[in-house]
Amino acid sequence: MSKITATYLVHDAKGNLEKKAESIALGLTVGSWTDLPAVDQEQLKKHKGEVVSIQEASPHQAAGYLGDRKAGLIKIAYPSANFSADIPAILTTIFGKLSLDGEVKLVDIELDESLEAQFPGPQFGIDSIRNKLGVHDRPLLMSIFKGMIGRGTDLFEEQLRAQAAGGVDLVKDDEILFDNPLTPFEERIRRGVKVLNEEYERSGHRTLYAVNLSGRTFDLKEKARKAVSLGANALLFNVFAYGLDTLQSLAEDPYIDVPIMAHPAVSGALTASPLYGISNQVLLGKLLRLAGADFVLFPSPYGSVAMEKQETLAIRDALTSDSRLRRAFPVPSAGIHPGLVPQLIEDFGKNSIINAGGGIHGHPGGAAAGAKAFRDAITEVQAGGTLEDAAAKSAELEKALALWG
Amino acid sequence: MSKITATYLVHDAKGNLEKKAESIALGLTVGSWTDLPAVDQEQLKKHKGEVVSIQEASPHQAAGYLGDRKAGLIKIAYPSANFSADIPAILTTIFGKLSLDGEVKLVDIELDESLEAQFPGPQFGIDSIRNKLGVHDRPLLMSIFKGMIGRGTDLFEEQLRAQAAGGVDLVKDDEILFDNPLTPFEERIRRGVKVLNEEYERSGHRTLYAVNLSGRTFDLKEKARKAVSLGANALLFNVFAYGLDTLQSLAEDPYIDVPIMAHPAVSGALTASPLYGISNQVLLGKLLRLAGADFVLFPSPYGSVAMEKQETLAIRDALTSDSRLRRAFPVPSAGIHPGLVPQLIEDFGKNSIINAGGGIHGHPGGAAAGAKAFRDAITEVQAGGTLEDAAAKSAELEKALALWG
Repeated sequence: MSKITATYLVHDAKGNLEKKAESIALGLTVGSWTDLPAVDQEQLKKHKGEVVSIQEASPHQAAGYLGDRKAGLIKIAYPSANFSADIPAILTTIFGKLSLDGEVKLVDIELDESLEAQFPGPQFGIDSIRNKLGVHDRPLLMSIFKGMIGRGTDLFEEQLRAQAAGGVDLVKDDEILFDNPLTPFEERIRRGVKVLNEEYERSGHRTLYAVNLSGRTFDLKEKARKAVSLGANALLFNVFAYGLDTLQSLAEDPYIDVPIMAHPAVSGALTASPLYGISNQVLLGKLLRLAGADFVLFPSPYGSVAMEKQETLAIRDALTSDSRLRRAFPVPSAGIHPGLVPQLIEDFGKNSIINAGGGIHGHPGGAAAGAKAFRDAITEVQAGGTLEDAAAKSAELEKALALWG
Repeated sequence: MSKITATYLVHDAKGNLEKKAESIALGLTVGSWTDLPAVDQEQLKKHKGEVVSIQEASPHQAAGYLGDRKAGLIKIAYPSANFSADIPAILTTIFGKLSLDGEVKLVDIELDESLEAQFPGPQFGIDSIRNKLGVHDRPLLMSIFKGMIGRGTDLFEEQLRAQAAGGVDLVKDDEILFDNPLTPFEERIRRGVKVLNEEYERSGHRTLYAVNLSGRTFDLKEKARKAVSLGANALLFNVFAYGLDTLQSLAEDPYIDVPIMAHPAVSGALTASPLYGISNQVLLGKLLRLAGADFVLFPSPYGSVAMEKQETLAIRDALTSDSRLRRAFPVPSAGIHPGLVPQLIEDFGKNSIINAGGGIHGHPGGAAAGAKAFRDAITEVQAGGTLEDAAAKSAELEKALALWG
């Protein structure tokens, strides 16, 4: 029998985890059980939720001061017979009403094979994206436009060219840049294609530009198809301002055949509390991979807008673990400068993306020099050298290290 | 200059609310300011976020033990020039990256008139729904199917008929009942129309049935239109498993001309923490009204799955306050039995919906008797009488009060 298993971190004032677990398993499926006639139990057996396990949470897993409360990890299996194979139905089943029922956080999900097989996962994934870029042996380098709000397409071109020239593999729009008269969506794509083709002819280096797909939900497919027809080679998408199922439809559309980058905007509203909501592992990791994100941005553990390191590694694992779904690129973001390259590679491995904003644009020599500093650091560290070795050969990196350490 | 103003409850470890406010206002708009050349400042002036006010939070507003932290309410105005007039762009602007930035909760929003005018709000609202039902002088009574998972259309018909016969004004699907082979979507509508028409002919009482609109996002419009063509007279929608903008498109579609009931499933993941996420007033109140919900369900302050009373009243006010948008019905749900009718009317007024599940189906005389008990209580309380007066005239209510108090 196909099913999804959900794990909840529960802080229960009454401390009766068994009762809580049983009430979840029944309340979110058949409603009641022991008082049902045998004939009804027979009919409903394949719809009944099951308590898989109940475990007291370790002090580390529990959130803060417990007092009289008991913290536990409760695992419940929900039969697929109860829901259609789409993320809204799954979320409503496993964390619909339950999200409103006290201190309970959804911390893990496991779909069995037959259920998972109904989701496409990333359309491209790590391997195809590496093939697109012709880069197989190092983390990719990504950067972002800076201060584009209120500015025009000339600055857009200038920034894009500098980043590509410095050797950036991907450039993304700022997620708060929407369709606007100064830098309209289609114009950004046209200019982007032109600049990146020119840079490719000049240097032989390929760069993808992820344009921010925004606007009304029911216009997104047509808009994305238009983007692709204009030559767009990647899309940025604020999936949590829309819905995971919308991302899935974009990823499934055969005419939207470019990788999709999921931005974590708004996701903190769901993930930040240790007591409530959904874990980063589930939301940014498992669900985004299931829905088809090729790249997933999340706060790095190093910056001022930081995420707990353990949580970022859980996202990494959820995106890249062995599975029938293609692997998505983890993109730890914010607070990244070239001095962090050894740490980034140690923590996130070769199959990740090093993404910098200020760490590229803030370089004293400009964005091209900022990008080169990163690339030089990555090359040396991948070859087994140190940052100091790299800096000795790269004036750009030397300057970056002097500035950011 | 058109704008949206957002209020955040911030708990800041450094205690510097001014600096925090300034960094939000700039960081989420033009990025930087004081170091910009005058010519750039001139150009960017109309895009710059503004700190409207900063106020230390009262101990009541702050969440729990503060220690060295300072709690404050920070109000920021974002120019509409920065975003397209859709909810995803607004959410990404005012609470995208910021949702990931420490202890910050979005507790209020205000759209100015020209921005709000770009949203339709409820397609029907309280007055039109009252006209549909021919009920103008009392709260409406609503109930829900019970234990339908794994069961067939005969039980569906039986439950619907009993609820309608007892005088329920609206019946909703269970939100975890999706399209399924035992009670398929279209079959539920066909059977529902037949039963409710028969009941109307028999008793002259009209009942709406809100069928659960589920499945893939990009199929929803067609599915809803089909539902309407089959005679569906209301839709239930798990909006937070999809996205607010999807609800808006359903409400705007001229071929989906039936009221839409927004279910709060999954919303607790965003609202439950006092430190993080989005307030109920904003999410279930202001945003759902903006997006076009005609009815909004939320946990009542009385049951075991309860919401703080103050929060439920803030939702009520956000849905029914004077505005150019039509008013939506507040539907406090869970833990409702006939003994609560005076309290419900006192707290939520005539323009609300009394919604019971167990309080109707659990009546010793069955669902029809359970519904009648509620209707009798409502009639008497509206006329200025007490529950005891009502029970003296109603055997059904007398039994209900004996059971639930």
